Amino acid sequence: MTPFLYYGFSGADPDIRSLSGFIAPDPVMFLAAGKKSALLVSMMEYGRACKESNGCAVENPTTLGVETGKGMDVWALNALKKRGFGAVEVPPAFPLYIVRALEAAGIKVEINKEGPARERRLVKTESEIANIAATQKAARAAMRVAEHAIKQAEPGRGGVLRFGGKILTSAVLRTLVRAEFVKHNCIDFSDTIVAGGIQACDCHQRGEGPLKTGEFIVCDFFPKSLETGYWGDMTRTFFNGEISAEQRKMHNAVKRAHDAVIKALKPGVTGADMHKIVVETFKKTGFENGTNPDGTPFGFFHGTGHGVGLDIHEGPSLSGSGGPLPENAVVTVEPGLYYQHLGGVRIEDTVVITKNGAKIL
Amino acid sequence: MTPFLYYGFSGADPDIRSLSGFIAPDPVMFLAAGKKSALLVSMMEYGRACKESNGCAVENPTTLGVETGKGMDVWALNALKKRGFGAVEVPPAFPLYIVRALEAAGIKVEINKEGPARERRLVKTESEIANIAATQKAARAAMRVAEHAIKQAEPGRGGVLRFGGKILTSAVLRTLVRAEFVKHNCIDFSDTIVAGGIQACDCHQRGEGPLKTGEFIVCDFFPKSLETGYWGDMTRTFFNGEISAEQRKMHNAVKRAHDAVIKALKPGVTGADMHKIVVETFKKTGFENGTNPDGTPFGFFHGTGHGVGLDIHEGPSLSGSGGPLPENAVVTVEPGLYYQHLGGVRIEDTVVITKNGAKIL
Repeated sequence: MTPFLYYGFSGADPDIRSLSGFIAPDPVMFLAAGKKSALLVSMMEYGRACKESNGCAVENPTTLGVETGKGMDVWALNALKKRGFGAVEVPPAFPLYIVRALEAAGIKVEINKEGPARERRLVKTESEIANIAATQKAARAAMRVAEHAIKQAEPGRGGVLRFGGKILTSAVLRTLVRAEFVKHNCIDFSDTIVAGGIQACDCHQRGEGPLKTGEFIVCDFFPKSLETGYWGDMTRTFFNGEISAEQRKMHNAVKRAHDAVIKALKPGVTGADMHKIVVETFKKTGFENGTNPDGTPFGFFHGTGHGVGLDIHEGPSLSGSGGPLPENAVVTVEPGLYYQHLGGVRIEDTVVITKNGAKIL
Repeated sequence: MTPFLYYGFSGADPDIRSLSGFIAPDPVMFLAAGKKSALLVSMMEYGRACKESNGCAVENPTTLGVETGKGMDVWALNALKKRGFGAVEVPPAFPLYIVRALEAAGIKVEINKEGPARERRLVKTESEIANIAATQKAARAAMRVAEHAIKQAEPGRGGVLRFGGKILTSAVLRTLVRAEFVKHNCIDFSDTIVAGGIQACDCHQRGEGPLKTGEFIVCDFFPKSLETGYWGDMTRTFFNGEISAEQRKMHNAVKRAHDAVIKALKPGVTGADMHKIVVETFKKTGFENGTNPDGTPFGFFHGTGHGVGLDIHEGPSLSGSGGPLPENAVVTVEPGLYYQHLGGVRIEDTVVITKNGAKIL
């Protein structure tokens, strides 16, 4: 068996964490090689790595015979030489400088997209599912806070919403959401989305400025638990006051696509099948795709969902190229529609694939 | 001039941000090539990248002629071919799969540690210094909260501290600190250090369990501003009640080393010189280095400081290999001493190097 080498740019690298159980603020490596597996850490991390890792061997520059001042390329080289390996597999994004050092020493390096951590992370254990469900509680609680603020706000001049004596901006709402996350020992990374009106048509626009009555406000929350490291992911689209018939039709179409996917999910169906359900639901309801004059796309132009775990985006994928979905995978279902004259609608839940279907977490 | 290609694993990559002004949650690339420079982003990021980047050219898979389903290796290849480049430089940790695709197409790839972003990030602009100083305010406010809790706590059975009717654990204190960060629109990434007693001897142990009277409690706070993206970094070592004469001597030695470095800092001195001041101060005051029976080091075994900016750890380095320090660099000064029987002491400020000296932010 060819050994597999992981490099974690931050020690919270999900692959390394799932294989070693260890979290460090600095770069670390993990050599997956059956009984010869080892976590490679700096001197400073060594004591804690021995205590906190899940029983794997732990090496540091001294145990690896690395001279002072030499880098992680030499850690990797010495770890492989010590174990007599002449070839190694690495993930696609593995750092070039380490590869160059290994190749210069005659070690063959091959890219392999399917490392040993991949399968382990694809299917969640019971405790991992519980961790994601716990984080999802924070997302749900924050969603209630956001809905309350949007619904209770009063429109003022130009339809601008006021809540609690202040103009309700995306930033104000984001701060309320963040405070709710902190109560649940969760955080967001500044990119919580509260996007009103046309802003929501650019899915990665997090939203800025005053929110208004009569417009869709996309609230996409993805907190991370500071306790467990697991993420949650949830989206709702709210509005204050009244929306048009066309907007209502759009919201209904998204809800219909969302519900159809959740109903169809079960072990063995493919991510591509699930994506197709969304595409066809929108086609049937008359919501088309295209390109705006400014070059941005309209309609439905993102994937239907993605895995959630120690990473906010991980396998399996619910998109055009998505493969079979295993039991106990945790995925998002998040169809959306975006038109510059109507705004954006996205509805997202995180679900676990169960024996006979799917359960919303 | 050989073009230089950056790849950002997250769109908050500091090099790419400093060159393009753009922040995205997904991977992006930046080709630095004078007038041929361009930010390469996904379709989904394109609209926002055009609006929010600092006037650089923006390309997406369509403008680059990338077929649907092809990856960022093809983005890079097409961007280079379109501009007629047959060679490119990349940072050491550049993803292997992109390099393999470029090399397969005959493009020469060389590692260069000194990309065009390095120098730009080493010396801060006035507004960057103001941003770091603003984040540092959050660290200082949180430090007052921590000091108050530790000093006002009452020791109970076994010296365990109680504050506000509860046992004062590292986690409880961390939550108070985090709440203070949120008030300043800053966050921490779960690794805020509140480490008491022997725990502080492992510098990356963030601290767990009840805090006690008579022991050093290392508080190392490094918030990040959600508004500007700039970090702050500050450490103080507090204690409740009384400490021993030996512990007091240790605290004094660290303070002395800290002050000596800040006094010596000015443009042109090297990071290595600054590190030497700390090493010699500790030698003079009788605090030695060595290895504990469990293999962990004791004494002073980390660098004296590092640059702070869009990254919590960036250049220039104040360590054995640190080069000349330019005016307007922002660096930490953080000597420390760690002995299992005495605990740990670290004192850290973030300073800007001014025309004639250094100013604590």
